[in-house]
Amino acid sequence: MPTYKAPLRDMRFVMNELLEFPKHYETLPGGSDAVEVADAILEEGAKFAENVLTPLNLSGDQEGCSLKDGEVTTPKGFKEAYQQYVEGGWPSMSQDPDYGGQGLPHSLGMVLNEMITSSNLAWGMYPGLSHGAMDALRHHGSEVLKQTYLTKLIEGTWTGTMCLTEPHCGTDLGLIKTKAEPQDNETYRVTGTKIFISAGEHDLAENIVHLVLAKLPDAPAGTKGISLFLVPKFMPNDDGTPGTRNAVQCGALEHKMGIHGNSTCVMNFDGATGFLVGQPNKGLSAMFTMMNAARIGVGIQGQGLTEVAYQNSLAYARDRLQMRALSGSKAPEKAADPIIVHPDVRRMLLTQKAFSEGGRALIYYTAKLVDQVEHGSDEAKADADELLGLLTPIVKAFLTEAGFDSTNEGLQIFGGHGFIAEWGMEQFVRDARITRLYEGTTGIQALDLLGRKVLMNQGESLRKFTKQIHKFCQAAEDEQMSEFTEPLAKVNKEWGELTMKIGMAAMQNRDEVGAASFDYLMYSGYVTLAYFFAQMAQVAQRQLASGTSETAFYQAKIETARFYYQRLLPRTQALATSMLAGADTLLNLSEDDFGLAFEV
Amino acid sequence: MPTYKAPLRDMRFVMNELLEFPKHYETLPGGSDAVEVADAILEEGAKFAENVLTPLNLSGDQEGCSLKDGEVTTPKGFKEAYQQYVEGGWPSMSQDPDYGGQGLPHSLGMVLNEMITSSNLAWGMYPGLSHGAMDALRHHGSEVLKQTYLTKLIEGTWTGTMCLTEPHCGTDLGLIKTKAEPQDNETYRVTGTKIFISAGEHDLAENIVHLVLAKLPDAPAGTKGISLFLVPKFMPNDDGTPGTRNAVQCGALEHKMGIHGNSTCVMNFDGATGFLVGQPNKGLSAMFTMMNAARIGVGIQGQGLTEVAYQNSLAYARDRLQMRALSGSKAPEKAADPIIVHPDVRRMLLTQKAFSEGGRALIYYTAKLVDQVEHGSDEAKADADELLGLLTPIVKAFLTEAGFDSTNEGLQIFGGHGFIAEWGMEQFVRDARITRLYEGTTGIQALDLLGRKVLMNQGESLRKFTKQIHKFCQAAEDEQMSEFTEPLAKVNKEWGELTMKIGMAAMQNRDEVGAASFDYLMYSGYVTLAYFFAQMAQVAQRQLASGTSETAFYQAKIETARFYYQRLLPRTQALATSMLAGADTLLNLSEDDFGLAFEV
Repeated sequence: MPTYKAPLRDMRFVMNELLEFPKHYETLPGGSDAVEVADAILEEGAKFAENVLTPLNLSGDQEGCSLKDGEVTTPKGFKEAYQQYVEGGWPSMSQDPDYGGQGLPHSLGMVLNEMITSSNLAWGMYPGLSHGAMDALRHHGSEVLKQTYLTKLIEGTWTGTMCLTEPHCGTDLGLIKTKAEPQDNETYRVTGTKIFISAGEHDLAENIVHLVLAKLPDAPAGTKGISLFLVPKFMPNDDGTPGTRNAVQCGALEHKMGIHGNSTCVMNFDGATGFLVGQPNKGLSAMFTMMNAARIGVGIQGQGLTEVAYQNSLAYARDRLQMRALSGSKAPEKAADPIIVHPDVRRMLLTQKAFSEGGRALIYYTAKLVDQVEHGSDEAKADADELLGLLTPIVKAFLTEAGFDSTNEGLQIFGGHGFIAEWGMEQFVRDARITRLYEGTTGIQALDLLGRKVLMNQGESLRKFTKQIHKFCQAAEDEQMSEFTEPLAKVNKEWGELTMKIGMAAMQNRDEVGAASFDYLMYSGYVTLAYFFAQMAQVAQRQLASGTSETAFYQAKIETARFYYQRLLPRTQALATSMLAGADTLLNLSEDDFGLAFEV
Repeated sequence: MPTYKAPLRDMRFVMNELLEFPKHYETLPGGSDAVEVADAILEEGAKFAENVLTPLNLSGDQEGCSLKDGEVTTPKGFKEAYQQYVEGGWPSMSQDPDYGGQGLPHSLGMVLNEMITSSNLAWGMYPGLSHGAMDALRHHGSEVLKQTYLTKLIEGTWTGTMCLTEPHCGTDLGLIKTKAEPQDNETYRVTGTKIFISAGEHDLAENIVHLVLAKLPDAPAGTKGISLFLVPKFMPNDDGTPGTRNAVQCGALEHKMGIHGNSTCVMNFDGATGFLVGQPNKGLSAMFTMMNAARIGVGIQGQGLTEVAYQNSLAYARDRLQMRALSGSKAPEKAADPIIVHPDVRRMLLTQKAFSEGGRALIYYTAKLVDQVEHGSDEAKADADELLGLLTPIVKAFLTEAGFDSTNEGLQIFGGHGFIAEWGMEQFVRDARITRLYEGTTGIQALDLLGRKVLMNQGESLRKFTKQIHKFCQAAEDEQMSEFTEPLAKVNKEWGELTMKIGMAAMQNRDEVGAASFDYLMYSGYVTLAYFFAQMAQVAQRQLASGTSETAFYQAKIETARFYYQRLLPRTQALATSMLAGADTLLNLSEDDFGLAFEV
């Protein structure tokens, strides 16, 4: 069975040494509290993840969820773990004190998220979806809705969902058919079918708060006619206890490739009573409040799975004896050498290590931006928001693509044993596979990045970020950093040039955006991680220069950065070429002719 | 449920137009028969795959195999399908007429294999393993063993296995512990535990013939002390019927990520009666007779899964309506455009298409070499054997890596639905995952290619192949082929240069081989497929020039080649850089320091 140890040393490195969270917290309201408790939160979170969630991951996968008479039973232990989570006060950590929250920075919650996702992704989705619902209510809910529902979500006694997808539409929400008819009493009757509803029905909490996209009668067509509604499983009584059952039911559970421990439901709304959240026909923007946070959350899943796959394949690589090193036996006293001596096994280990540590730095940096957007001064807020918008699709898509590759490297290190369920490595791969899909596929993120975030403002947001990277490279020049800053400056410059070329081509043909977008996103991810690795190497070099006692830790950080620069960053070369290949290479073949090899 | 249509048009293109199989068959003993029946075999094979095997694929995955009282039950319909396979005479197709075979070329069997693997990989492994056993017996078995066992395998009434792996060793077979003690009557008592035995126990056939690696008493240590034994499940009676039960039992079935319809067994040999196959202590070379054919067979699995994933994601991409094309609506009469209008969806479709068609050309070329090794003149045989040795690790590893990526592209096109079992796309991914592992992982193939096949003879074998490519480029110069021959000549030259550089570095440090091998193998695969795409484009251009009526088919072939050259071949750039990064980037980090991020 896989094990997990929260990487506290590296988390502290990123939080305190790289990103100076303590200084950052002092700029936030109530930030001194955060500085004080941050360490305790890491320690307690680690215990919860390691001791409570990790042991339930494999069994949760094997047992799965079951549906009987409309009730979903989650795998053994999930409910008790959720109770512990609520009793520990975890749901309220980063929430508004006015509604029962502890008011700690969101970034702390995101650090905790990494641990939860590494230890048990399927379980983590139950509280995870609640946080999306809390975000939407905090920003768009009326005071009554907040008092009635947000307080319960923050307490953790109720959980939330996001009901967007319908059988015929996922990406294209303008096509939704679910209807909401206004009633006399300012409520609405919501009718329709939603699919892929994570945590749509379960036995962890006493009530479930669905946030549902639906159309009002005579709403404009397309995305401009979507509204957001709150539909509780049980209508609350005046004393806040769950009352009568609402007309919303789980019709079926999906049979999925992974995340078996999470209930993925078909939800039938049969004239269920709902409440409007925000303005009529403005549901899509309210939905994006949930979605943006959710997208970063999914990026964390990619990175968290990378970390746990890495830890387990490392243990196996140290333990498994097979063949001798080509350069001569390293463990002559044993029947064979441990496979970690083989360079190709190390290539796979270091790939995972680099994606996990690089991804962590990127995510925690994003987390800092989230804090600033939530609580910063107006100017800081606007800047942070712009950069956050640019980085969100990179975090979501690049880290989940890397996460899938990394969990596969982890499985591969186990050889044939990796394919066997009891080792747990194949579960990480199956669980990781969903992260490339939900909350917007990689292709959607790529269009969001290149089309909306970069080209829509003529590259202005990107320019701000590349300028920041450029300045870093210049400032680091006189330190022993050229092995990093030279290649970084080169790809950073190329990033701008590629953007310009695609932008020019797109003025002639909008399809050039879609034709370049995937490669562009991956390219952007590699450059972004290179930026963070250069910074991490710089911090490590400075610590070494100042005579730290932790030589090995900082040296390992530098070697990981070197591996990244010499083995992974070169992938930008291939991406730069193929992204400029043009739309014709994709569009010349007519739709009918795709199947001529097998269609008679 | 996924569908499958054998790509007969493209198979005929590769067999007849690209590789001139009819001319090739005339050079083989009994080859005129092959020319005559080839088409009927394609047609009948297609029917069997499409109508019998395809409908059992998803249900076989969901039902899996079960073990009770030592007996394994395969999924519903598997047994009946196997009976039809036997009644159709398929097992005997390419086998020796002296033992009941039809004596048709092996290449025809490999074409059939593509269809079987596309339609039902798990089922296909039952007869697939038999073919490995037949190969070993044909080459190394005594006349008595052949008359007793090979005839039954060829008939298909009995099936075979390869029993190599043990719990503590897979790659490193020198470590095996299974023992074979000689008895008075020229038999042996075989004792030990073998794991991951595909088709080790099942209900399809009346007897199972295990080919087992074991050590004789006082055998030399390591791989030089391994012998090969035949151990039947039932000892045959004199009349050829199965007699008394031998002491070999299936102890357990493995719970696996995929290929659920195939029984993957732990096999316990408790003093089972066995017969020596070939010479004592020469078991490893006998084993490699099975293994080389098996490796190409696994390459076919990678390509076959690519094909079926492509077909199904193409159908979905034409059907699913979602968003409008960025360049303006393509189906204004519908609620949204079919997703095939989106360039990024086409990128994923074309990636699958290119890997399937390029892989098919490479495999069928390899199949031709297999025919020549089996039946060619002495000189042709030696040349074919050398080239086959070089290409085998590329076929095995490159096409399974491409197959895993391609099945994932297929799943991705389905969006969230791809993650749901009923669509069948996630099964292709799970099934494809094993192909990167069994019969030698990708890492092992990479070492085989670079270390053994290329560097061990100072690049001589590779030089012969690159010379062939070079000549092709030169000869094609005056046709309209420069868009292909120029980049091909460039990477072909670079292939030799990279080999030289790594060879030089390896003279200083043998670990440089392992450090470069994975990237080198992938690089080699991309160049090799480019060679076949250039040839296919040439054939297509000639057909177009000669006024074919199938304009669309040949034009599609050229567009696919263009896509490959402009979108996939550039990956060589990244691989060329990273393979030269050197072993230091992998070895500098000490084994202890890999875990400093999380180990306290």
